Amino acid sequence: MNPVGKPGKTGSLMPVEEALARLLQMAEATPILEREYLPLAQVDGRVLAQDLVSTLDLPPWPNSAMDGYALNLADWTGEPMPVSQKVFAGQSPEPLKPGTCARIFTGAPVPAGADCVEMQENAEILADGSVKFIEPMSIGQNIRPQGQETTPGELILPAGTRLGPIEQGLAASLGCAGLTVVRKVRVAVLSTGDELVEPGQALGPGQIYNSNRVLLCSWLQRLGCEVVDAGILPDDLSRTRQRLGELQDVDLILSTGGVSVGEADFLGIALREEGELTLWKLAIKPGKPLTFGHFRNVPVIGLPGNPASTLVTFALLTRPYLLRRQGVQAVEPLKFRVPAGFDWPQAGNRREYLRGRLEQGRATIYRNQSSGVLRSAAWADGLVEVMEGRTLVVGEDVMFIPLSDLLD
Amino acid sequence: MNPVGKPGKTGSLMPVEEALARLLQMAEATPILEREYLPLAQVDGRVLAQDLVSTLDLPPWPNSAMDGYALNLADWTGEPMPVSQKVFAGQSPEPLKPGTCARIFTGAPVPAGADCVEMQENAEILADGSVKFIEPMSIGQNIRPQGQETTPGELILPAGTRLGPIEQGLAASLGCAGLTVVRKVRVAVLSTGDELVEPGQALGPGQIYNSNRVLLCSWLQRLGCEVVDAGILPDDLSRTRQRLGELQDVDLILSTGGVSVGEADFLGIALREEGELTLWKLAIKPGKPLTFGHFRNVPVIGLPGNPASTLVTFALLTRPYLLRRQGVQAVEPLKFRVPAGFDWPQAGNRREYLRGRLEQGRATIYRNQSSGVLRSAAWADGLVEVMEGRTLVVGEDVMFIPLSDLLD
Repeated sequence: MNPVGKPGKTGSLMPVEEALARLLQMAEATPILEREYLPLAQVDGRVLAQDLVSTLDLPPWPNSAMDGYALNLADWTGEPMPVSQKVFAGQSPEPLKPGTCARIFTGAPVPAGADCVEMQENAEILADGSVKFIEPMSIGQNIRPQGQETTPGELILPAGTRLGPIEQGLAASLGCAGLTVVRKVRVAVLSTGDELVEPGQALGPGQIYNSNRVLLCSWLQRLGCEVVDAGILPDDLSRTRQRLGELQDVDLILSTGGVSVGEADFLGIALREEGELTLWKLAIKPGKPLTFGHFRNVPVIGLPGNPASTLVTFALLTRPYLLRRQGVQAVEPLKFRVPAGFDWPQAGNRREYLRGRLEQGRATIYRNQSSGVLRSAAWADGLVEVMEGRTLVVGEDVMFIPLSDLLD
Repeated sequence: MNPVGKPGKTGSLMPVEEALARLLQMAEATPILEREYLPLAQVDGRVLAQDLVSTLDLPPWPNSAMDGYALNLADWTGEPMPVSQKVFAGQSPEPLKPGTCARIFTGAPVPAGADCVEMQENAEILADGSVKFIEPMSIGQNIRPQGQETTPGELILPAGTRLGPIEQGLAASLGCAGLTVVRKVRVAVLSTGDELVEPGQALGPGQIYNSNRVLLCSWLQRLGCEVVDAGILPDDLSRTRQRLGELQDVDLILSTGGVSVGEADFLGIALREEGELTLWKLAIKPGKPLTFGHFRNVPVIGLPGNPASTLVTFALLTRPYLLRRQGVQAVEPLKFRVPAGFDWPQAGNRREYLRGRLEQGRATIYRNQSSGVLRSAAWADGLVEVMEGRTLVVGEDVMFIPLSDLLD
């Protein structure tokens, strides 16, 4: 175990990127290998298990980008042209009769022999039904060529892609009725602490409500995980051992609030006896104590129990770990450089993730950054990252991570 | 109907903000008024129907922010102090015996009479069990006072708040076992066009796969809507009328691809006959044609059928409309000012929403911005907004809207 850092001494705390690199390495050592084939409508939030390769041309034939008229530009003399056919989307047109044009609608196949579509707004329909074109035209205009978007054999989405509505739509456009995805990660959520009471029950002396359980269960579901709600772990060694033993078929035990050097830490004792336990002191605030270990063969991550600490360490360390176990390469959240709307006069020895909002383009922060409840996070749009040792005055740049990107 | 705009003439196209303002006004005129009470675990993605007000102090009692020792600072002379009790989280301590300190753990109630907690790293345990404090201390240090986060009667979340994991956690910390939320918006998704074939089926001449259906169904579910999949509307007037008539209990009919001035537009005919229809030509690209109307009393939004156009108009216009119908005030997505990583030499008369990525802090765009498929959007992290009439060189600022914020 690393020694505890004192203000000003950052050497003894583990930087966030080192903790992340270690977790990702461990995730890569224990990938989820099982796959399942699911109907396309059911893959939102899942991870693609094999490359999606196009088997067709998109578009499958040249088609019109406009409602208008298809013609062969070489036939156009400036004189009105008769309309020889009408092509709706979904129809299969005749080859274009020389010297004529075809009425055509958006998405309809362009008849063989036509090389140009003029939009209807630039066409004048004469009394005899022929059409006069009033603007200059060019070959290929308003035609989407066959195979413009993709051709057979092209890689469309690599294995490891997280799937959402857009990827579902893209796969549909290629005719896929389903996709092979990585099995859901099974995560057991354990809260530790005798002080915890479930919402809806009466609060006794010294007790507080368990907020991390619903936070994590809900978030894990958004990340495409299967959640095993393992409840509150009693502060008792033999029951702790028993409860952990019941979780041997999960991919991760995620606990909050329990593992420390405290004397009442039965989870820590159980892990030391029947597995392994590493306590990290991270250069992160809120956060700092993070546990990684295993019980028998099941990996265990122990997050700090203060809600804002749970949120930040889950978002920045556990989320990427869980995605990487499913084979996702892109696990970093989006980060934007924005001007600070606040002063930060005193440098800290831990990297701060302040709960903040974007207001008139500036990062503003919630007045009370206590890690005790989630009020700051509910107010916030994102996490404002202030690096170790950094001070700030209004207008200097900080990094802003949208919460929506982390919750997704 | 507005006349069609020509390049350079922006007056004839409706600006995006005007279209949004009109849609939001219509949403406010038809709010979803029904509510339901749900267990807290089930409210992710839903909208809070009544203010959430605190009924308790948080924390409920002063508690320790550290593992350490609680003492009354006035008792401290610099000499070692005996330890008179040990307080774990979840316990209810005795009042502090004068002249002594209490062993205390993170989250445990601070005993009455103690006004300071020193962390264990700054304490030396002597052979007789007494504790010597080696650093200066101050009143209130490492104590989280009762009611620091909230007190009874405080507004925690206003009605109209969208609920996600963080809000669920926050409500849990206040002891709420459930919340009253707005009834889900029921949205019927209709695709129009004879050229559409469902994925998994064989593609005939002139046909393409229906990608908008799964895109929208999946996205609507993320937005907390109840989706009625109304399939592909046949290009036939009487069957169109019949299908629309079957959808009288939904809150919105959302169609793609059908409504235009085209001759085969049976949806448009049905709306004109038994409702109302407004065709907007929007200053948006991809996008432009958007329909708003109703069939009998059910609102209808018709999005353009090209997948990227469907995506952009859904994200920027339909999503806020649907949220506002549930009473959500904050319907604008996050927008970040970032330097462009591309040149944009030719100004357009429509506002462009390019599918882009953030690369080294700059907005880069997908090489093919065709609206024909979703490939650009699957590649992208966000929409890069280029205003009407604007040109850009590398390094100039553009606005970047994260897709994760729109998909959430």
